[in-house]
Amino acid sequence: MNQQRQHNANRDQDFGDVDRAGVLVALSRILPTAALLSTAEDLKPYECDGLSAYRELPLAVVLPEDEAQVVAVLKACHARGVPVVARGAGTGLSGGALPHKHGVVLSLAKLKKILHLDPVARVAVVQPGVRNLAISEAAAPCGLYYAPDPSSQIACSIGGNIAENSGGVHCLKYGLTVHNVLRVRAVTIEGEVIEFGNHALDAPGLDMLALLIGSEGMLAVVTEVTVKLTPKPLLAQVIMASFDDVEKAGDAVAAIIAAGIIPAGLEMMDKAATAAVEPYVKAGYDLNAEAILLCESDGTPEEVSEEIAAMRSVLEHSGATDIRVSLSEAERLRYWSGRKAAFPAMGRISPDYYCMDGTIPRKRVAEMLKAIAAMEKKYGLRCANVFHAGDGNLHPLILYDANVPDELARTEAFGAEILALSVALGGAITGEHGVGVEKIGAMCVQFDSAALSVFHAIKHSFDAQGLLNPGKAVPTLHRCAEFGRMHVHGGGLKFPELERF
Amino acid sequence: MNQQRQHNANRDQDFGDVDRAGVLVALSRILPTAALLSTAEDLKPYECDGLSAYRELPLAVVLPEDEAQVVAVLKACHARGVPVVARGAGTGLSGGALPHKHGVVLSLAKLKKILHLDPVARVAVVQPGVRNLAISEAAAPCGLYYAPDPSSQIACSIGGNIAENSGGVHCLKYGLTVHNVLRVRAVTIEGEVIEFGNHALDAPGLDMLALLIGSEGMLAVVTEVTVKLTPKPLLAQVIMASFDDVEKAGDAVAAIIAAGIIPAGLEMMDKAATAAVEPYVKAGYDLNAEAILLCESDGTPEEVSEEIAAMRSVLEHSGATDIRVSLSEAERLRYWSGRKAAFPAMGRISPDYYCMDGTIPRKRVAEMLKAIAAMEKKYGLRCANVFHAGDGNLHPLILYDANVPDELARTEAFGAEILALSVALGGAITGEHGVGVEKIGAMCVQFDSAALSVFHAIKHSFDAQGLLNPGKAVPTLHRCAEFGRMHVHGGGLKFPELERF
Repeated sequence: MNQQRQHNANRDQDFGDVDRAGVLVALSRILPTAALLSTAEDLKPYECDGLSAYRELPLAVVLPEDEAQVVAVLKACHARGVPVVARGAGTGLSGGALPHKHGVVLSLAKLKKILHLDPVARVAVVQPGVRNLAISEAAAPCGLYYAPDPSSQIACSIGGNIAENSGGVHCLKYGLTVHNVLRVRAVTIEGEVIEFGNHALDAPGLDMLALLIGSEGMLAVVTEVTVKLTPKPLLAQVIMASFDDVEKAGDAVAAIIAAGIIPAGLEMMDKAATAAVEPYVKAGYDLNAEAILLCESDGTPEEVSEEIAAMRSVLEHSGATDIRVSLSEAERLRYWSGRKAAFPAMGRISPDYYCMDGTIPRKRVAEMLKAIAAMEKKYGLRCANVFHAGDGNLHPLILYDANVPDELARTEAFGAEILALSVALGGAITGEHGVGVEKIGAMCVQFDSAALSVFHAIKHSFDAQGLLNPGKAVPTLHRCAEFGRMHVHGGGLKFPELERF
Repeated sequence: MNQQRQHNANRDQDFGDVDRAGVLVALSRILPTAALLSTAEDLKPYECDGLSAYRELPLAVVLPEDEAQVVAVLKACHARGVPVVARGAGTGLSGGALPHKHGVVLSLAKLKKILHLDPVARVAVVQPGVRNLAISEAAAPCGLYYAPDPSSQIACSIGGNIAENSGGVHCLKYGLTVHNVLRVRAVTIEGEVIEFGNHALDAPGLDMLALLIGSEGMLAVVTEVTVKLTPKPLLAQVIMASFDDVEKAGDAVAAIIAAGIIPAGLEMMDKAATAAVEPYVKAGYDLNAEAILLCESDGTPEEVSEEIAAMRSVLEHSGATDIRVSLSEAERLRYWSGRKAAFPAMGRISPDYYCMDGTIPRKRVAEMLKAIAAMEKKYGLRCANVFHAGDGNLHPLILYDANVPDELARTEAFGAEILALSVALGGAITGEHGVGVEKIGAMCVQFDSAALSVFHAIKHSFDAQGLLNPGKAVPTLHRCAEFGRMHVHGGGLKFPELERF
């Protein structure tokens, strides 16, 4: 990597010299009055996204109505060296849409048209502000739907899904956002419109579509998206299996996948999670079980009956103590209701919770659960475990009380140790929530400086001044050096116990 | 894009000032004598890859035995400004491994160990020189295989598959290389080792794995690959369906996909192709049919019988004049044998042939076939059509005689018109063979200068001096300007008939 890039990779920019009045005048020439917000009162709703622990008021919020306005806003900000944070529905969980105090929040909320739906080619062309679920609703009359289903799908937008490469409970079988998007039209900070991807299976040239998806608003601002639509399965059934031991449940997950089955969903909840959820939603969970698995099959009735039988057999061999199969769509939805309500349900048993999002190889799920149990003792905090177990994506929910001195600090240390162990087990610090501001330090654990330098170099090629979403997703090498110093005490790692992995 | 990049994007470098003697001395200090080839006789086997129309002797060929030697070779070349062309098995069809006359060919042929095979996690870790089929052979005892199956799979290497993002007849259901590789270890031109990707479903940071796959040796040299393994289906059956009209066959392809079926393979051959193949392999094709489709289903016996019935119903409604289903594995392989032998069979009916590789949206297959029939008249040349129809990937084989004056020129014009029409129909200039040297001009049709500038910028971030595989895959803006001038006569496009699309 050449010297100019090393330089950029090393400094977090401040942007304190932005000409605030000049920017507002320039934006007011581009946008109608109602589309430019700049008073503290108007800016307040944009001060955070779904990660409300971090808040910041931006210089301004703009709400363009079409691509031409997006281009004009970006050119104006680029000319004046003003940071730009693109924002979808603001449901992100890693602070990717946290405003920059000297920057502009570019909301795509008004770009919410479904432009075209082609049931034969099975694609929909939509604007970035369209809600995830709205695509499936529009496609439903054709027997189609958009497969990735983040828990926030009622509210979250497809543009935000692209920024974070969102998943959901069905992504084990149907893939993440990157597997379900064919083409993206986006605008660079210089105001250039670029089409990423293609309606064909493969595209010539470098795979910039995959590069853009999950880039957390750092490379370009999305203005149009072509998604794949998937035929709705004729039938779906779910097995609820109980285990008297979390490790057995973890091993059952690995055994199902090793048997060649790709369930439509394969979720795990431990006793702490079911205990919190059951009184709240009455899903019918086995409260005596140390862990339960939810294993979904979908397809034709024949496929489903065969796959359910195969999964039942593996679960029995793995030591399940009880196995129930949903016998109606209502029952299936009831079994899932507890899983979908798991996060809000934590509020009933703990004043606060912190949701982690590491991934690990599936076969190490049991090992991770054992380690988390040990960490609960070490940090003196409870942790409820809700996993997208099939793809090794963990959502441990650390329960704490922000009003108890030191609990938040212990929670953060607990979370950091889970992420560090995820990396040590061969996994990653985020599965589907993105890095944002939240895991910017953990990126230093995940990647060495050679990899981070390549990230910076690519960022530099799209956005040489670093104006798009500064301070997110990819840490500077300087920040990592600081992070390293913070985590080394007396020459040892903060997590010496991880050295055995 | 900043000025330095515009500059790089604009010039094709010559490298005529390379210090040949100095390079050879440096390489001889790194490698054992047998691993450094520099005489014309030794270099001859490396003068071309599978696209033998282009030939060039390199300065030297190196055959490193491990990653440390790869690093040392790259550092030595980088220090001296010497181009490096990485080479796998040399089976590529777009000239991606064509040597540079002032450069070094870096063969990965000696890195051919299968390092690790994990049947539970269903992954294999292999060196880049391992043959595609060797992975499946090693995984067979565990009931697993590596899904992407290019026609060259007996010979081609996984490193080359990564360079070109290779597909195959089963990629409609099982995906291209990019969908079946989890992690790649590679070395930059500066000798930095970088790991791309992760064993988890998603990875934090920018998706550099997808960026690397299909980058045609321009970004880094692969030294280790982790591939996904897929369970072998219990059963596979294939339908052979006859049509009295190519357009009906094309529409049947779109109808199968629109019915929600993803066949394991969905191939099409027209009458010219079956007529060439049948006497050669005796596959049992219907020689009266204007086109045949091969539609494969795999899975459990129940799944296969259901899917075969569903496809049969769609084919009947689409006007198939004859439908046969393979009743044994021997019969299934016989039906496929003709498809797999289609390219060599052309040699029996024509002195030369030129294989194209465009992709188009599936529902426009019939339209493309009609247009190709018109082009046959226009250029006075026959064309046999062999399509991966299910994913819209065309392999029209233009038949010509290089000894007839002007036939090659007409063939190239015919091919260029097919590719331009592919783009006009919403498709792409290559489906699985890559751009290489062959389609470098067609890239100017596919992409505008904004997109090409981003490619150059990314290339620049990995390889500022442009030493890795120069002159391939991404054309300079200068070359595109020349190409544009070449193709505009009297103010009109060379293909004015495409304006109607």
